[in-house]
Amino acid sequence: MARIVMKFGGTSVADLDRIHNVARHVKREVDAGHEVAVVVSAMSGKTNELVAWVQNMPKVAGSNAPFYDAREYDAVVASGEQVTAGLLAIALQSIGVDARSWQGWQIPITTDSAHGAARIADIDGSKLIQRFGQGQVAVIAGFQGIAPDGRIATLGRGGSDTSAVAIAAAVKADRCDIYTDVDGVYTTDPRIEPKARRLAKISFEEMLEMASLGAKVLQVRSVELAMVHKVRTFVRSSFEDPDAPGMGDLLNPPGTLICDEDEIVEQQVVTGIAYAKDEAQISLRRVADRPGVAGGIFGPLAEGGINVDMIVQNISEDGSRTDMTFTVPQGDVAKALAILDKVRETVGFDVVQHDDGMSKVSVIGIGMRSHAGVAATAFKALAEKGINIRAITTSEIKISILIDGPYTELAVRTLHSVYGLDKQ
Amino acid sequence: MARIVMKFGGTSVADLDRIHNVARHVKREVDAGHEVAVVVSAMSGKTNELVAWVQNMPKVAGSNAPFYDAREYDAVVASGEQVTAGLLAIALQSIGVDARSWQGWQIPITTDSAHGAARIADIDGSKLIQRFGQGQVAVIAGFQGIAPDGRIATLGRGGSDTSAVAIAAAVKADRCDIYTDVDGVYTTDPRIEPKARRLAKISFEEMLEMASLGAKVLQVRSVELAMVHKVRTFVRSSFEDPDAPGMGDLLNPPGTLICDEDEIVEQQVVTGIAYAKDEAQISLRRVADRPGVAGGIFGPLAEGGINVDMIVQNISEDGSRTDMTFTVPQGDVAKALAILDKVRETVGFDVVQHDDGMSKVSVIGIGMRSHAGVAATAFKALAEKGINIRAITTSEIKISILIDGPYTELAVRTLHSVYGLDKQ
Repeated sequence: MARIVMKFGGTSVADLDRIHNVARHVKREVDAGHEVAVVVSAMSGKTNELVAWVQNMPKVAGSNAPFYDAREYDAVVASGEQVTAGLLAIALQSIGVDARSWQGWQIPITTDSAHGAARIADIDGSKLIQRFGQGQVAVIAGFQGIAPDGRIATLGRGGSDTSAVAIAAAVKADRCDIYTDVDGVYTTDPRIEPKARRLAKISFEEMLEMASLGAKVLQVRSVELAMVHKVRTFVRSSFEDPDAPGMGDLLNPPGTLICDEDEIVEQQVVTGIAYAKDEAQISLRRVADRPGVAGGIFGPLAEGGINVDMIVQNISEDGSRTDMTFTVPQGDVAKALAILDKVRETVGFDVVQHDDGMSKVSVIGIGMRSHAGVAATAFKALAEKGINIRAITTSEIKISILIDGPYTELAVRTLHSVYGLDKQ
Repeated sequence: MARIVMKFGGTSVADLDRIHNVARHVKREVDAGHEVAVVVSAMSGKTNELVAWVQNMPKVAGSNAPFYDAREYDAVVASGEQVTAGLLAIALQSIGVDARSWQGWQIPITTDSAHGAARIADIDGSKLIQRFGQGQVAVIAGFQGIAPDGRIATLGRGGSDTSAVAIAAAVKADRCDIYTDVDGVYTTDPRIEPKARRLAKISFEEMLEMASLGAKVLQVRSVELAMVHKVRTFVRSSFEDPDAPGMGDLLNPPGTLICDEDEIVEQQVVTGIAYAKDEAQISLRRVADRPGVAGGIFGPLAEGGINVDMIVQNISEDGSRTDMTFTVPQGDVAKALAILDKVRETVGFDVVQHDDGMSKVSVIGIGMRSHAGVAATAFKALAEKGINIRAITTSEIKISILIDGPYTELAVRTLHSVYGLDKQ
């Protein structure tokens, strides 16, 4: 007997038929004798509908900023998960599985007071564990908790993944299964490289890099949380037949296990190739080379909510001035340039250039810590295809390369091949 | 300064524009210096959508009864009001009115444990009153509270009227305004009799008779509650311009005041004519005339959930057998006949006849307590039009007459005229 948290996203509960299918997945685990908590998202499209209602409310005269009280936003938007939880509990009861729905305030899942993008502060698992003992499945509305002011707080978009991992940690679950519309984590995007393979296992650190690069299988925060609490997290498909062979395998179900690196016996040097499109490069020339300059530039950008990514700095010839290049999401370029214009004189730099339509391609693998030459292999392979490298940043387990957007697919396929990811 | 509870139904909050309009009605009262609580229903159609989801869930194999856990039904269905409350709070804030949404469990509004059709047990008005003191409008999700099990309970369809009146009683409001899509209570249905007039005032007792007869302006339970707690309740339109002259009149706004009969100085003998279509008449012949017979017939019908209305019993010629006639809603005839078939032998009666397509027309007025001849006037007027009277029941303030359905409109107009309701 194990204790399992199962999480189903919006596409997995999109309509009554899909919810009934989810109930069959849950029943399979219950019938195997496991204790089960299920975390659900809102039905596909519902959250967007609710958010649109909030955002389309008439604005205060004279204000052009979207205005709304985040506490009211939360009260409105959290209703989507509440509905799914109730419906799934009914679906489970209808196939003979004892179940009840739980809202965040009933458990309770307490959060901080950052309404609209709250963080979970604490989960009291005692009521859930008591119900497990009675053989009852807990169906939990994801994405929400109760804030110190006694009102509903949502965790921000995609927060149901985070709910699931946090609940798994709170009830000391043996496994947290994230059911989604893909059947696992792949070596790269299969839409770009058909030879992409599903990974049996990936380490938390690697998944974190994959997730933050836009492999939209799991929210970054949920991976961080899983890593901290060492929650064994499976990514698997809700669209497979719930009763297909192997689906109920406790140790090795179909999907990708995200786990501690110690659990991965045969580590590959490179685990996957990720990419992020629509990056823009901004270059500052003749930046004064004195302490505080970087803060004078990146501080205001951060305050403006702009996510600066790759930063490259070159010493200029005479040593008193430098060139500085960094990337921002393409949609933020105009805002970034406006902010830079304001600080130009006080900080001291000459020319601002910017190029849109860049892509960032990344090579990720824990094994590269102990292997030399991984970066050189990438540079050589891209050069052979005539792909110009705009900028490079590296971390212990990742090499990111900025290239011109139109070369994205070619670069991904080239790197996927050169590190042997095409072969089993 | 007064304390006012305002309630807006589903058509009054059907979309964002309507919600914005509701906010203007609220702002008018706030600007006049009043303390305001607002009770809202779900957006028109939302409750039906949610109920359909619950009811269309796959059923337990072998069961053909609609199956669902009423507690889960409540968790799902209550979300509709939660959404409206949040949206209205945002709309109010956007026009400069301090407001926050409240869900039943936050106030709390406690109910009994009859999930799906709960009754309010208690309302703690202290938090609301505290916020009134700070000038904040309370926007309350109607139709719901929290049951002793700590879970959301709904009050049954139309329960938002009941929420509003109960809250008005709890916070000792000076007035409870029920905003709806009609502008008051009329002497009869204006679709049948264009000369119908809006009543300035109607007593609780009269309104109770009107409501229970299908004048669907107010839920019966809310009128009962208003009567018990002497809550001055106004029925008025949310579709009028919120800032039209007189709309903010504290003592005499446009609409109909439902109040204690003492407040109605010039009582009319007859206040209104109500009707209910789609009644069916069931006749039992040669019923054994001994104690317990009525219980033997009507007990099983009540247990079957069948609402028996007019009952007429005639002594038969030899005094040992009687004929018994009663009405049930037409949709319940088949079920009623099946139940009667089961008890026929034990109770002892001969033949069961039934006629569909009956209507019940009622003359209502507190003044008839002290006036003789009111019933005779009705019988004479109907006879002059050739309308056959099938059955009659009377109470202190009501005369109900069962007639053939096709004569409904003629009967209503005839009675409306004969009691002088056509004239101001």
